[in-house]
Amino acid sequence: MVSEIICVGTELLRGNVVNTNAAFLARELAGLGIDCVYQTVVGDERETILEALRAASKRADLLVLSGGLGPTKDDLTRETAAEFAGKKLVEDERSRKLIKEYFDRRGIKPADNNWKQAMIPEGSRVFDNHNGTAPGMALETKNCRIVLLPGPPEELQLMFRESVEPYLKEFVAGVILSQTVKTVGKPESLVEKEILGLIDRQENPSVATYAQDGEVHIRVTARAESRKEANKLIKPIVKELKNQFGDEIYTTEDDVTLERALADLLLDQDMTISCAESCTGGLLSAALVNVPGISELFKAGLVTYSNKAKRRLLGVKKSTLQKYGAVSRQTAEEMVKGLLADSRTDVGISVTGIAGPDGGTKEKPVGLVYIGCSVKGKVTVQECHFAGSREKIRRSSVTAALMLARRCVLEYVSKVTFGK
Amino acid sequence: MVSEIICVGTELLRGNVVNTNAAFLARELAGLGIDCVYQTVVGDERETILEALRAASKRADLLVLSGGLGPTKDDLTRETAAEFAGKKLVEDERSRKLIKEYFDRRGIKPADNNWKQAMIPEGSRVFDNHNGTAPGMALETKNCRIVLLPGPPEELQLMFRESVEPYLKEFVAGVILSQTVKTVGKPESLVEKEILGLIDRQENPSVATYAQDGEVHIRVTARAESRKEANKLIKPIVKELKNQFGDEIYTTEDDVTLERALADLLLDQDMTISCAESCTGGLLSAALVNVPGISELFKAGLVTYSNKAKRRLLGVKKSTLQKYGAVSRQTAEEMVKGLLADSRTDVGISVTGIAGPDGGTKEKPVGLVYIGCSVKGKVTVQECHFAGSREKIRRSSVTAALMLARRCVLEYVSKVTFGK
Repeated sequence: MVSEIICVGTELLRGNVVNTNAAFLARELAGLGIDCVYQTVVGDERETILEALRAASKRADLLVLSGGLGPTKDDLTRETAAEFAGKKLVEDERSRKLIKEYFDRRGIKPADNNWKQAMIPEGSRVFDNHNGTAPGMALETKNCRIVLLPGPPEELQLMFRESVEPYLKEFVAGVILSQTVKTVGKPESLVEKEILGLIDRQENPSVATYAQDGEVHIRVTARAESRKEANKLIKPIVKELKNQFGDEIYTTEDDVTLERALADLLLDQDMTISCAESCTGGLLSAALVNVPGISELFKAGLVTYSNKAKRRLLGVKKSTLQKYGAVSRQTAEEMVKGLLADSRTDVGISVTGIAGPDGGTKEKPVGLVYIGCSVKGKVTVQECHFAGSREKIRRSSVTAALMLARRCVLEYVSKVTFGK
Repeated sequence: MVSEIICVGTELLRGNVVNTNAAFLARELAGLGIDCVYQTVVGDERETILEALRAASKRADLLVLSGGLGPTKDDLTRETAAEFAGKKLVEDERSRKLIKEYFDRRGIKPADNNWKQAMIPEGSRVFDNHNGTAPGMALETKNCRIVLLPGPPEELQLMFRESVEPYLKEFVAGVILSQTVKTVGKPESLVEKEILGLIDRQENPSVATYAQDGEVHIRVTARAESRKEANKLIKPIVKELKNQFGDEIYTTEDDVTLERALADLLLDQDMTISCAESCTGGLLSAALVNVPGISELFKAGLVTYSNKAKRRLLGVKKSTLQKYGAVSRQTAEEMVKGLLADSRTDVGISVTGIAGPDGGTKEKPVGLVYIGCSVKGKVTVQECHFAGSREKIRRSSVTAALMLARRCVLEYVSKVTFGK
């Protein structure tokens, strides 16, 4: 089954709202083994919606629409889809009852135009809306099935899971399953070069790379009769990638971020962590704090942007700052040492650099960043060079800092374990 | 001029990435007075991209594409657009030089496939990429202009602002000038209600509201023969908005953020600032450090996520944490007092709250956040209730904290000045 997603809404065309519905629907459809070949956004206009339906029905046999089921005058999706399918609108008793109950619960009287939401194209399957008033529906034409869903994400998502998924499963054969192998340390072009053979060799599962914030994700996607079959196809490829990239892979799970992988490793080793940040200004701490349950192991974050703060909070020596500067290997080292002296933590990270746009010199250009990491007293300092905007340099620094900490902890663990 | 946006990327079709580029481009085009009538998402396939270009070129005279300019084999947008326009690809010397410099700065050798990014359809206008390696470009066919932009949002956005906007302004008749009045403190629905008369009354300049991270921006856009004429149309509307919203407006300049407005106010008053953060985990400090030149006045940021850190670094009393909990008015107050006792700063901000998804109770639900602010010893604590994901609650908290600090400093200043 091949599908298209059509999102209706002038607010999307104007960019006032980010289209999260398309991403949600695409992901869910892929999970059901339904290819999505096209996504379209159109405004709330009868002519445009009709044209989109016409074009899409030539390419796909399942059209999923979101938006335009509201009570107001400019909500036209229901009427237009009925016109396209050649169906009359008739009142759906159950939907009318649910709308009444929705307003009764809130002690509000429905407006006249709310009843319009109970009008359904003849012969449609109706999907209850448990987060709002607009029911969803599925209608059939000679060539395709059309599913209409409400625009508000919380209504659409609940309805999809409750009603649309079971409906679609009646028609679909097989599943599509993906697994993501996440790597850090190599640029995308290099990662792809190293697995070009694998990419070319594979059709099912397919292998593709995606760059994201200094990381490279390798996605392995299989199509099969069952979940079990799909997993069987994916497994050997993931194994091959693991052999090839080793420690550069920090996870093979979709919902594990780099900070989460580091947190899991620390938790596993019963280690605590602290940060001292200059140019990243708190973003590194914020990344770590984004891991739910981190409070057990995250001891403290210090944002020491000025030289004074570096001296007062971390004990960086005045002479070090004068001789080598705030952005130097020496300062990064004293920062992380001072941090750990004070916070009694197993692992410490320090970041100091020039995020720009000003402040760069020939010797110390914008993008120069030093990252210090101490694990149980052993300090490593890494010099990095990043390009891009202030924002991008800061984000790259956070990724590099998380990566360095992960590497240093792994080294420590392997030494302790193997006595190397 | 009528435009369409075409986003190329299998990761979008599969829903692995949310399409923020379409929203960004739509908003920017609208700001330039260019209508966007259609958005399409297609996969990285020659045939599909060609079909999308064909269909779009019938409806619009400006096609803006994003994605598929990467170095890898499945990046096909450049080649396909050239084919559609009937242009040969030729190497652009300047782009090759910039790619070389990009890798030199990092001390990495470019892979062979990186040079492909310097290949440009003959006769195109080239847009430098200051956040990556793929240049953008604009080419012309008989019926339309085609603009190609890289997919990574930070590359696309910077390039649009630096190069595409000036390029497009050459073709849009007359000038389109916008001024943004940025407000904090009221929800968008309320702001819109209050200026509905103004919105309805105005066609040129047009008035529109945009909600963004807890702020509401009102954009006034005028179309005129000259800059001077446009400014003449905009000025009285901005004045009317200033009268209406007063202190809720923190700036009327496009490039001034809320943190920058606060920093400017502090600089003006010769005041320093420090932060102590729990649930925001460093995001508040990071927002402040994002203001270039902040080091003069930003003394320190402390991320005290655990109770132990709150006690050790800020001197919050054990009894307070036990009696009222870490998320309480009392803890927020002790946090900011402890922060200032220690860091000798004029202004302090503390944030403590429950960002979720777990940790909420009936009395203290997810989204409950306390913000403390001290200005020259006077402490104010504000209770906030936010909805949404962990990420959204944290971002809303940062906005609210910046807003409270701004309000408290303004109050202090007006008292000192007028002896109220």
